[in-house]
Amino acid sequence: MANRALLWVAEKPRVQQLISEGKLTQPVVKRFVAGDVLEDAIEAIRERNASGIGGILDLLGEGVTDPEGAQSAADDYLAAIKRIEETGVDTTVSIKLTQLGLTLDKGACIDYSRRLAAEAQAVGTTVEIDMEQSDFVTDTVSVYRVLQPDFPELRLAIQAYLRRTPVDLQGMADIKPRIRLVKGAYAEPEGAAFQERSEIDAQYAFLIDWLFENGTAPAIASHDGSLLEHAKRAAARTGLADHDFEIQMLYGIRSGLQEQLARDGYRVKTYVPYGSAWYPYLMRRLAERPANLRFFLRALTSR
Amino acid sequence: MANRALLWVAEKPRVQQLISEGKLTQPVVKRFVAGDVLEDAIEAIRERNASGIGGILDLLGEGVTDPEGAQSAADDYLAAIKRIEETGVDTTVSIKLTQLGLTLDKGACIDYSRRLAAEAQAVGTTVEIDMEQSDFVTDTVSVYRVLQPDFPELRLAIQAYLRRTPVDLQGMADIKPRIRLVKGAYAEPEGAAFQERSEIDAQYAFLIDWLFENGTAPAIASHDGSLLEHAKRAAARTGLADHDFEIQMLYGIRSGLQEQLARDGYRVKTYVPYGSAWYPYLMRRLAERPANLRFFLRALTSR
Repeated sequence: MANRALLWVAEKPRVQQLISEGKLTQPVVKRFVAGDVLEDAIEAIRERNASGIGGILDLLGEGVTDPEGAQSAADDYLAAIKRIEETGVDTTVSIKLTQLGLTLDKGACIDYSRRLAAEAQAVGTTVEIDMEQSDFVTDTVSVYRVLQPDFPELRLAIQAYLRRTPVDLQGMADIKPRIRLVKGAYAEPEGAAFQERSEIDAQYAFLIDWLFENGTAPAIASHDGSLLEHAKRAAARTGLADHDFEIQMLYGIRSGLQEQLARDGYRVKTYVPYGSAWYPYLMRRLAERPANLRFFLRALTSR
Repeated sequence: MANRALLWVAEKPRVQQLISEGKLTQPVVKRFVAGDVLEDAIEAIRERNASGIGGILDLLGEGVTDPEGAQSAADDYLAAIKRIEETGVDTTVSIKLTQLGLTLDKGACIDYSRRLAAEAQAVGTTVEIDMEQSDFVTDTVSVYRVLQPDFPELRLAIQAYLRRTPVDLQGMADIKPRIRLVKGAYAEPEGAAFQERSEIDAQYAFLIDWLFENGTAPAIASHDGSLLEHAKRAAARTGLADHDFEIQMLYGIRSGLQEQLARDGYRVKTYVPYGSAWYPYLMRRLAERPANLRFFLRALTSR
């Protein structure tokens, strides 16, 4: 439960202030976040493209509670899509629904999402919907279902560690959903989510099988070698070619493995976050992998 | 994993012989099994009825691999249903599909099951379908789905410890299924089932919520006080009266609690097995609860 404790501490305002303002954190932020502005992310994606890896562009920010904030995020995404067209980089766009005001005005959030999906489609790319805390899963799935008939290329992130996930997936079986399967990185109670790493991994493997049997072009978002092997076996068993599914990883994590997989002929995409609202994203990265936390502590203590 | 080891050892022929023939096991068998013949079970159910508790009659036997065996089991069940009518005891009938030849001839198994469901209905009772090893889940669910439109009172056992269970349940959401939720008592690999008691309990609680929200008249088959409390809260939350759901327990386990719950106004049923093929049933009971195993060992060593 070390990760839950860390996520809990990370929410304290004084801790936030301390970490956000400290210049010491800069090297750590730099490792996991492409930069403050869109151009930084475009540049990072261009570099990944050179290695045969696609991008997933993500403007950091979540939990927006005022209409102006949602409008501003939508505008930023529209600008990003325009820039994708201009630069010709190979990338999708990942959006967080709470950043588009999901908790404020679900109808407006759907309108923004529809507009972004349409603009992305017009420039030859697609939108992926991130998944957030368990409180937002029902609404996020329902927004996906509303938009999916018009935008079948739309992809939805689903979290392996939530107990409800098999129910959510089976509830979408009729549309053979396009899913990004992630482990799940938020602090959730025992009643909502598996807690032990071994249980989450076993559940993740079970859901990989479900996706290859019931979904469309699964995206396996994991840095875990044995889960990736499980996915390769599931692909072979269900007759999917190496390019019919995706392996997604995060910017700054196992970059060498990402490049190796791309060289081996797999379809690989790197999730590239940018923007100034990096705090909660960074805390989730530190909490989910001991190696990331060690990197952080080393950076803090080495000066 | 002590229970898996025990179930594994219990399958060894020499162990089976040793335990089956030993007179020492008789008191243990007697505790968990109503008797060798139908009349023993009817008598046990009549006693339970006197305490306001319903019965679930179960003829022991499973894994039948010859047509004569399946026919013989079906005949025995028909005789039991006739006897239920004659004696007027309050009980349902629980069948195991592998006992009716599921692995041998699925069509014949469906025919037998349909016949039993019809006969049960004719005498004012219902059939419940037990769930067995994970290999048989897909077929067992499909038999239930085939029969359910004609026999909406039919009940299906579903095992909380299987990872696939939420998928199976959501796949039946359209018919608001009548489910008996059990923990699961077979030795299953990590890939198929949760192994840790705490994980199974948490999953069981999650599934209780699903059943009260999406099923019909849920039957909670558990001896665990905190899971029963969870079910009572789910009933209150979803507006079900104490008689709109069932609590099911096994013959010989927590009989006092069963009676107390019945006095408190809950709908309680006791699963009453009878017959000579008690070996695998008894081994599952010993493996699933340390208290049962201690009782067994005490009986063995006290003479």
